[in-house]
Amino acid sequence: MKIDVLSLFPDMFSGVFGQSILKKAQEKSAVKFQVIDFREYSTNKHRNVDDYPYGGGAGMVLTPQPLFDAVEQLTSQSEAKPRIILLCPQGERFSQSKAEELAEEEHLIFLCGHYEGYDERVREYLVTDEISIGDYVLTGGELGAMVVIDAVTRLLPGVLGKEESHLQDSFSTGLLEHPQYTRPADFRGMKVPDVLLSGNHKNIEDWRRKESLKRTYNRRPDLLENKALSKEDEKWLQEIKDNKTT
Amino acid sequence: MKIDVLSLFPDMFSGVFGQSILKKAQEKSAVKFQVIDFREYSTNKHRNVDDYPYGGGAGMVLTPQPLFDAVEQLTSQSEAKPRIILLCPQGERFSQSKAEELAEEEHLIFLCGHYEGYDERVREYLVTDEISIGDYVLTGGELGAMVVIDAVTRLLPGVLGKEESHLQDSFSTGLLEHPQYTRPADFRGMKVPDVLLSGNHKNIEDWRRKESLKRTYNRRPDLLENKALSKEDEKWLQEIKDNKTT
Repeated sequence: MKIDVLSLFPDMFSGVFGQSILKKAQEKSAVKFQVIDFREYSTNKHRNVDDYPYGGGAGMVLTPQPLFDAVEQLTSQSEAKPRIILLCPQGERFSQSKAEELAEEEHLIFLCGHYEGYDERVREYLVTDEISIGDYVLTGGELGAMVVIDAVTRLLPGVLGKEESHLQDSFSTGLLEHPQYTRPADFRGMKVPDVLLSGNHKNIEDWRRKESLKRTYNRRPDLLENKALSKEDEKWLQEIKDNKTT
Repeated sequence: MKIDVLSLFPDMFSGVFGQSILKKAQEKSAVKFQVIDFREYSTNKHRNVDDYPYGGGAGMVLTPQPLFDAVEQLTSQSEAKPRIILLCPQGERFSQSKAEELAEEEHLIFLCGHYEGYDERVREYLVTDEISIGDYVLTGGELGAMVVIDAVTRLLPGVLGKEESHLQDSFSTGLLEHPQYTRPADFRGMKVPDVLLSGNHKNIEDWRRKESLKRTYNRRPDLLENKALSKEDEKWLQEIKDNKTT
């Protein structure tokens, strides 16, 4: 997969792209990152990339020319039709299913504005996807792009080793993960539950499933709403609800 | 504000903390960042920070000792009682109101695991807040910590200049922002709406409010559910709904 990022702050990406899984993914040739300062595409003699909004108001707006030209050049070098992704608060909420969808593509181009707004023509005629990573205000699109890139890259074939992949599995059950414990069994008087030390695998399985249901019910009941549960799960969930009300 | 980050990949943060608003915030002494490799706190002779889970299963679990010791040392140096924040999928969903709440604090400590799970005793006895930035799987807590830190830091007094602050204002109206346009008025045949070139401020105001309502209705109707609207807004919203159904 090829991933191009257009940003006015390309140095923001070096630390994240140069470490851990994203670094390994490049070494394994599963992905190729390129970060481009789109100011270089400005045909304005001062290399400006923004201007005042028509109709007045505070703030600056990114002009269409540098973004259109940069995307067109990147697209012309690509055999695959790229997805062109704008990070912005108005976008579709990012989700694991969106990450899975994007992981099927061959070429992604990310557009990161930085406290300026975007000219509407960029949204309307240039981009294919507008994404928001959540309902909070960030300084720019860069962190959003990093989040999406991390979530997508780790899904590419061959990127995750066995050790790293279990979290994904646990997420795909649709429930929050059960509590985990490791050594020591007694840390300053805080103890690991006896069942986990029992060696009885059936009891351990049951305890984990119940704790997973309990945590999901207490913290994210919305995840249970459309979930198909086994008869046993239903029974346990009822017990959890009954305990809660007493 | 003092912000400490515990991570096994401290180099991930350099690009983000060294650019743009987060850089300026440090220069203005509004915030002081420190990133600490908590492996340095491991008393294990191999400096291990994780171990196998009790009860079996895939993946590794972060042991409590290095995290407890690191947090305790940081806390002992602090006059204020710090908020100790764990980034994890099971956490409370991060929001702008959570960012505002954290911006009132004097000291934040972020705990970032990296594809390992956390020993439950860390959640239960050490942290004050568990936060998730969204329903997607990331490689580690580092990107989540950067997102929360960016959202919080830009709220600190004196950090944002006038230019950068308008986006926050627009978000606080509770509606998505109206379309923005800048020069040229005609870019490759794609034109700016006439009203914005009219110089008629009342018409521009009305157009922007209607477009803001329309975009919110089309993309994020949930934001309208509990929102108090003026009579005029209600009328416009009804027009938007009627147009939609024809």
